[in-house]
Amino acid sequence: MDNKAYLVQMNGNGVHGKNPVNSKTPNGTGVTGSGLHRLSGNSSLCPTKGKSRRLRWDVKPSEMANNTLNPIRAIVDGMKLTPNPDKPMIALSIGDPTVFGNLPTDDAVIQAMKDAIDSQQYNGYAPSIGYLKSRQALANFYSSPEAPLTAEDVILTSGCSQAIDLAISVLCNPGDNILVPCPGFSLYKTLAVSMGIEVKLYNLLPEKSWEADLKHLESLIDERTSCLIVTNPSNPCGSVFTKEHIQKILKVASRHCVPILADEIYGNMVFPGCSCPSLASLSSDVPILSCGGLAKRWLVPGWRMGWILIHDRNNVFGPALRQGLVKLSQRILGACSIIQGALESILNNTPQSFYNNTIGFLKSNSEICFNELSTVPGLNPIMPSGAMYLMVGIEMDHFPDFKGDVDFTEHLVTEQSVFCLPASAFEYPNFFRIVVTVPEEMMVEACGRIREFCQRHYRPSSCNSNDLDH
Amino acid sequence: MDNKAYLVQMNGNGVHGKNPVNSKTPNGTGVTGSGLHRLSGNSSLCPTKGKSRRLRWDVKPSEMANNTLNPIRAIVDGMKLTPNPDKPMIALSIGDPTVFGNLPTDDAVIQAMKDAIDSQQYNGYAPSIGYLKSRQALANFYSSPEAPLTAEDVILTSGCSQAIDLAISVLCNPGDNILVPCPGFSLYKTLAVSMGIEVKLYNLLPEKSWEADLKHLESLIDERTSCLIVTNPSNPCGSVFTKEHIQKILKVASRHCVPILADEIYGNMVFPGCSCPSLASLSSDVPILSCGGLAKRWLVPGWRMGWILIHDRNNVFGPALRQGLVKLSQRILGACSIIQGALESILNNTPQSFYNNTIGFLKSNSEICFNELSTVPGLNPIMPSGAMYLMVGIEMDHFPDFKGDVDFTEHLVTEQSVFCLPASAFEYPNFFRIVVTVPEEMMVEACGRIREFCQRHYRPSSCNSNDLDH
Repeated sequence: MDNKAYLVQMNGNGVHGKNPVNSKTPNGTGVTGSGLHRLSGNSSLCPTKGKSRRLRWDVKPSEMANNTLNPIRAIVDGMKLTPNPDKPMIALSIGDPTVFGNLPTDDAVIQAMKDAIDSQQYNGYAPSIGYLKSRQALANFYSSPEAPLTAEDVILTSGCSQAIDLAISVLCNPGDNILVPCPGFSLYKTLAVSMGIEVKLYNLLPEKSWEADLKHLESLIDERTSCLIVTNPSNPCGSVFTKEHIQKILKVASRHCVPILADEIYGNMVFPGCSCPSLASLSSDVPILSCGGLAKRWLVPGWRMGWILIHDRNNVFGPALRQGLVKLSQRILGACSIIQGALESILNNTPQSFYNNTIGFLKSNSEICFNELSTVPGLNPIMPSGAMYLMVGIEMDHFPDFKGDVDFTEHLVTEQSVFCLPASAFEYPNFFRIVVTVPEEMMVEACGRIREFCQRHYRPSSCNSNDLDH
Repeated sequence: MDNKAYLVQMNGNGVHGKNPVNSKTPNGTGVTGSGLHRLSGNSSLCPTKGKSRRLRWDVKPSEMANNTLNPIRAIVDGMKLTPNPDKPMIALSIGDPTVFGNLPTDDAVIQAMKDAIDSQQYNGYAPSIGYLKSRQALANFYSSPEAPLTAEDVILTSGCSQAIDLAISVLCNPGDNILVPCPGFSLYKTLAVSMGIEVKLYNLLPEKSWEADLKHLESLIDERTSCLIVTNPSNPCGSVFTKEHIQKILKVASRHCVPILADEIYGNMVFPGCSCPSLASLSSDVPILSCGGLAKRWLVPGWRMGWILIHDRNNVFGPALRQGLVKLSQRILGACSIIQGALESILNNTPQSFYNNTIGFLKSNSEICFNELSTVPGLNPIMPSGAMYLMVGIEMDHFPDFKGDVDFTEHLVTEQSVFCLPASAFEYPNFFRIVVTVPEEMMVEACGRIREFCQRHYRPSSCNSNDLDH
């Protein structure tokens, strides 16, 4: 707002616009068309006479728009991504399991949608928090003896993004701070910063399979900490916390009375042999807003079907916070009514084999990628246990040709036409993220090219760039 | 935040909670469970030692949640709506054309959706502003020689509500003000107030078919006015501005350099013989964000398919404001990808007869209602020209039994089981709104009951309550 040029009216003659963009508008000069009208009809149509007013166009985006920053875009848009023309491009960067067509959703999901459309029962407005029937179906689906749910505990949203938006919006005021995992999904920061909420990053530890650094986490909490965000399973790490580790996180939250936003969009997407209890199932006292959706497990991220599950067995949130969520849900309403109408059938009729097949594929691709890259000098892949990502550490000392992970991944495109997201996009330099949803042959080919790239640029410690300089 | 009880840690013993709601939580006392843990593990797990911190739960909804007010809910929830058990309820209050099943969408719309689902091409993330193909289809559909559009001028949103939210969010900062029609759709105020934006109501004039009071409108503009909202055709009035009146509104906006948010969700829904040019088609200099969607014209409000059409032929918004809209669209993404995928086919294949049938029905029902209520003493219905509403003035002097429109409509439910929304919900007392999408026989029956109700309570001027008191 500081630069807005408000000009005081001067006898209706206006002031010539000096802004080169605006000066070509008829009203930039203030004397054409309506300016004449103003002169002739001054008494009846100019009741603002004497008030200060704007005489030329000066429309700027709001501070909220300016403060809505997307770190991934900021980094990727600044990269020179020019593939090697001799090699077809392989993008391992896109967190969308549908792009290569190898992971369609289940027929039962498709059928549920078509039935909902044919019924013509779901064309009208749903309640702002969603149809009762659909919320009941979700409550049944996710209820457990340790963390029971009723339909009253469920709010349907337009994708998990809106669930996260509502959860942050209801818990935090401008000036508050939230605790966000690092590396972590960039949306938390995008949303919080645009609302004037401070973001404090707590470290995840790669050497401990990306467990949270509890000491660091706890040291960040202060009296303005209004929310702890826990992402489990993790984007971008693909890690899954053990029951014991979740309990430790819950104890920190409990000790400091900080409510939790559990981003569990990858819930149940864990490899065989690994369990992934929900946060809520391990706590009876910490109030938890668990955010989820159909996006990943049902492989339909574009459908924008998300939800908040309210776990609050000790009534810490109370009716006021629940009512706050309902009020916020009325701003723009939530998920498409067709998908809401199909939800019960999607949840109840998707066969277990569909989930198993997806997980089996993700695990197999992860193993291919991990096994291949583990033997590449200079790279340290970390085997995931779920979700659809794998993080790879870069021993930058051994790659003196590159300034960091952004430079490294940029040249990987230039030379090998393989694009991986540099983890600077997750505020975690010297790593890159691989999406493991691509077809197997593409994964094999990509890993081979990454190996070739690394072999070409790797310098052993004994003859690193510093030594060469001397 | 003012009442938050932050307590300084005292030797880990905590302080007994005094809040009756919170005191029953294990951590309300600060000495159970994790309290013990804290005592035993103080050195390693309590790095906040000495910092002030919270020792009991005190989670409150944010100010934004508290400030998200829905005037319709506030009024309706406060009403005692107990229908007469001898008469089946007729709700003329719900602005949803689908509730009675008499207005299904077109088969072409249904088919487009099923094709989009079957293709499995629209399961993944769409760009945050929508698929290019769908934006191109909208640009083609709404382009005119006077107001040409390209795909670059189109942003797809989750319903028209999100379109309005994005438009206000990008144009206005906290402390700015926006001009909103009165009576008008309540969402503008709900959104603006929650963002700290002041709302200034400009009057519509019932005696002039709900034209805007231009003098009043202009008198409200000041240097912090960042947006003029124009709803045409109107909810709740069903009025449609003439070309000449729109031109006058545009001149005010042009003279004061105030951009327009045109809520044109009822665009093209005008009765035969009436024309309804878009605002953008009548101005070459005023920058306009036109908000619309499939909701009303295609009779699928639950599907949440909305859009913003950016009209800015003199480049007043410039790239910065467009970029601001793109950034805001990345917060929670927009419309469901399936509907986006179906959009081109919906726009191109819906037959003209479908639109005509809907309009024909709305006009016929409006005439039935208007003709019937015109002859009811004490009521002054105003014939609409479009949309799906009809406003009825109540001569309260003649109904001394009731305190105002809320009381009047409440008793209309108690006695006649007919519910109309009191226009106090639109900040316009002494009127009520009738939704004309109900089946014809229901409209006839409802009008008969309204007549009976009014006849029973009507008092001629010569013996009003004041006279009786003396």
